[in-house]
Amino acid sequence: MTLPRKDFFELPDGMIYLDGNSLGPLPKTVNSVLSSMVTDQWGAHLIKGWNVDDWMGQPMRVGNMVGKLIGAPEGTVTMGDTLSVKVYQALSAAVQMRPERKVILSDSGNFPSDLYMAQGLIAQLGQGHELRIVAPEDVMEAITNEVAAVMITQVDYRSGRMHDMAAMTAKAHDAGAVMIWDLAHSAGAVPVDLAGCGCEFAVGCTYKYLNGGPGAPAFIYVHPDVIEGIKPALSGWLGHDAPFAFEQDYRPAMGIERMRVGTPPVLQLTALEAALGVWDGVEMADVRTASIRLTDLFITEVEKRCPELTLFSPRDGAQRGSQVSFAHDNAFAVMQALIARDVIGDFRAPNLIRFGFTPLYIDENDVLGAVEVLADVLDNRIWDDPKYKTKGRVT
Amino acid sequence: MTLPRKDFFELPDGMIYLDGNSLGPLPKTVNSVLSSMVTDQWGAHLIKGWNVDDWMGQPMRVGNMVGKLIGAPEGTVTMGDTLSVKVYQALSAAVQMRPERKVILSDSGNFPSDLYMAQGLIAQLGQGHELRIVAPEDVMEAITNEVAAVMITQVDYRSGRMHDMAAMTAKAHDAGAVMIWDLAHSAGAVPVDLAGCGCEFAVGCTYKYLNGGPGAPAFIYVHPDVIEGIKPALSGWLGHDAPFAFEQDYRPAMGIERMRVGTPPVLQLTALEAALGVWDGVEMADVRTASIRLTDLFITEVEKRCPELTLFSPRDGAQRGSQVSFAHDNAFAVMQALIARDVIGDFRAPNLIRFGFTPLYIDENDVLGAVEVLADVLDNRIWDDPKYKTKGRVT
Repeated sequence: MTLPRKDFFELPDGMIYLDGNSLGPLPKTVNSVLSSMVTDQWGAHLIKGWNVDDWMGQPMRVGNMVGKLIGAPEGTVTMGDTLSVKVYQALSAAVQMRPERKVILSDSGNFPSDLYMAQGLIAQLGQGHELRIVAPEDVMEAITNEVAAVMITQVDYRSGRMHDMAAMTAKAHDAGAVMIWDLAHSAGAVPVDLAGCGCEFAVGCTYKYLNGGPGAPAFIYVHPDVIEGIKPALSGWLGHDAPFAFEQDYRPAMGIERMRVGTPPVLQLTALEAALGVWDGVEMADVRTASIRLTDLFITEVEKRCPELTLFSPRDGAQRGSQVSFAHDNAFAVMQALIARDVIGDFRAPNLIRFGFTPLYIDENDVLGAVEVLADVLDNRIWDDPKYKTKGRVT
Repeated sequence: MTLPRKDFFELPDGMIYLDGNSLGPLPKTVNSVLSSMVTDQWGAHLIKGWNVDDWMGQPMRVGNMVGKLIGAPEGTVTMGDTLSVKVYQALSAAVQMRPERKVILSDSGNFPSDLYMAQGLIAQLGQGHELRIVAPEDVMEAITNEVAAVMITQVDYRSGRMHDMAAMTAKAHDAGAVMIWDLAHSAGAVPVDLAGCGCEFAVGCTYKYLNGGPGAPAFIYVHPDVIEGIKPALSGWLGHDAPFAFEQDYRPAMGIERMRVGTPPVLQLTALEAALGVWDGVEMADVRTASIRLTDLFITEVEKRCPELTLFSPRDGAQRGSQVSFAHDNAFAVMQALIARDVIGDFRAPNLIRFGFTPLYIDENDVLGAVEVLADVLDNRIWDDPKYKTKGRVT
C-alpha cells in the first residue's frame, strides 16, 4: 500500500486542499452508494429497510469500522448525534461516576463546544460543579484528587499540539478521576490506542479525517469495564434494552448500545460507511509517517520562504497532530487570498492560518505548491486588498 | 390542487403503503437533489460549501419550511438532532422556567422515548422532580398548579387519538404550567396552529408525514415570548451567538438559533428540503378532509368485512389523527401476513395492527385494496402459519 491514494477521492482540478481537518473531500464511492441506498433501499423497501437493509444495525456496524481506526475493540463504539451531544453524554456519565467530586478539568486548547457543553451540564446539574480550564501544558499538574473528570481534546484544533493519551489517562486514574478524550482531530490522523490507554470515554466526529461528509455523525466509545454501570442522561428509546416493546420505563440496553439516543441518521451513516472504505489496507502507522514528513516539509519551506509568519504549532513532529498553523497579524486576509488562489486552509481567530495534511490524498507536490502560493501572497502583499478583509461568515 | 399526488413519489408497483406514519416514501426529487449536493457542493466546494451553498443557514431555512406546515411564524423553528434530543432540550428549558414546581405531567399515550427522556432528565437533575403519567382522558384534570410542564404527544402513536391543542394549552397556562407538544404524528398529518395555540414548545420528527427519509432531522419550535430567557442545557457551539469567534464561554444566540447544538446533518437536511417540495400548493385543510374520508372508509369497510378485529382508534374522525389501529390477539402474525402480501402497516405491541393514511399518495382504491387483502388474511387464517409468528426485530 502506498500513499497517497488520490484516486479514491474527488479532488477539484487545481485545488490544493489543506482543510481535510475541517471537512474531508468526497470519496468517489459515496455518491453511488448513497444514491443506491436512497433508491434501492428507502425507495424500494420503505419501512422494511430497517430490517432488510439493517439500518437498525448500522450505528454498531459503522462504529466497529471506526473502532478499528482508534484501537477500540468490537462492540465498544457506536455512532449517532453530533460530537457536542456525545461530549454531553460522556461528561454527564463521568460526573455521575464520581459524585463526591466537583471539578471537571479541561484546557484552553479544547474545542470551545466541549467547554460550552460542560458549562451547560454544570448549570443544569446545579450541584456546584466547577469547570476548571488550565493551559494545555498545565493539565498534568492540575489532575488532583478534586477532579471528577478530565475532558481533553488530544490534538489542539488551532495548534495541532498533542497530548500523550497514555500518560494523561494514567495520571487521571492515579488521581481517581475519569478520563474523557475528544478525538476530533485524532481519528484518522494519528494512531490511537483506546484499549491500550484505558480511558473510560472517547468521542469524536467523522467529517474531518474520516471523510464522512458535512454533518456526518459522531462516535462514542465507552470502556467495557464501566459501560454497564452507566445510567444515560440522554435515555432515548434506541438506547433502551427493548425499544420495540414500548415499555413505559427506561431500561438501558446492554453495552455500548445504551449510548444510542434517537433514530439513526441513515443517509449520513450510509455516506460515512462508504467513505470508510478508503481505509481498507491502510495502516495508521504509515499515515503518521507520511503526515510527519509532509508537515515537517511544510514548516521547513514556509520558514525559508515566508519570514513574516510565526510558527504556532509544535516544531517537533512527535508533539504535533496532522496540521500546522502559523500566526500573522492579517491572518484572515492572508487565508482569503490563498483560498481565492485555490489553496484551501482555514482561518482561526484571532490570528492563525491553519493547514491540515491528510496523507490519503496530499503529497509533497501539494505541499510545495501551497508554499509557492503562500509566499506569493505574502511577498507581494496580495492579501492587502479590501476584498480579502471583509469578514463574512467564516468556517 | 387535487389529492393524491402519487406522481410526486416513488411507490413500488403493487405495494399498498399504509406506513407513512412510520417512514414516508421517497419523493421523486430527492435522489437527484441529494446526488447533486454530494457531487456539486461537497465534491466541488468542499469546506467552502458552508458558505457558498449556505449549509450553515440550512437548519433555519428548512425550519421555516416546516414551520409553514405547523402554523409557526418565520424564525421560530430550527432543525437538527433527533426528536428525543429535542424533547430533552424543550423539557429541560421548561422545568428551568418553573423552578418551584416539581411535576412533569404526561400521559400513557405518549411515545415511550419522550417518557424515557424525561426520566433521564429527572435523574440527572436530582431535584426531586416527578414524572406523573396519567391516562390520556385524565390529562386535563391532572393539570394542577403543581405541574411545571405538560409534555404531550398530540396524536397517540398507537390509537391515533388526538388531544385538543388549544384547549389543553389554555388549561396548562391557566394552571401556570409550561406546555410542550410533540407533533411527531401531527406535522404533515393534521392542521396545526402553533402560534394560535400559544404553547411554549413544540418538537417533532420529519421522517413520517414529511417524508424526509430514514433518520431525517427533528424540529423544535419555541414561542418568541420565551426564547430569549432560555439557557440551553445542550449548549453547543452552533447555538452560540458567535460560533466562529471560538470564545471560551457560552453565550446563547438570539432567538431560536440557540436551540441548535452541533454541526447540522447537511445530507439529511438536503434530502428533507427536497422532500418538502411535495407540499407546494397543498393546503393542510384539504389533507385533513381527505384523511378523514380515507380513515372513515377504512373503518367502515374493515368492520363490515373483518368482524374479528376490534377498532382501537376513535370512531369520530374529529378525534382521530391520520391513522387507524385495530386489535387482534394475533396482531403480529396478521401484520406479517399482510406485509408478505405487500400491504404495509405495522404492528404495535401488544396486540395492534396499525395503518397510516397519507392523502398525498393514498386514495380510496388503496383503502379498498388493503381491506380486501386483510379480509383474506383473516377469513382464511393465512396468518396462522409459523412463518408469520417468528418475532425478529420489528419496527
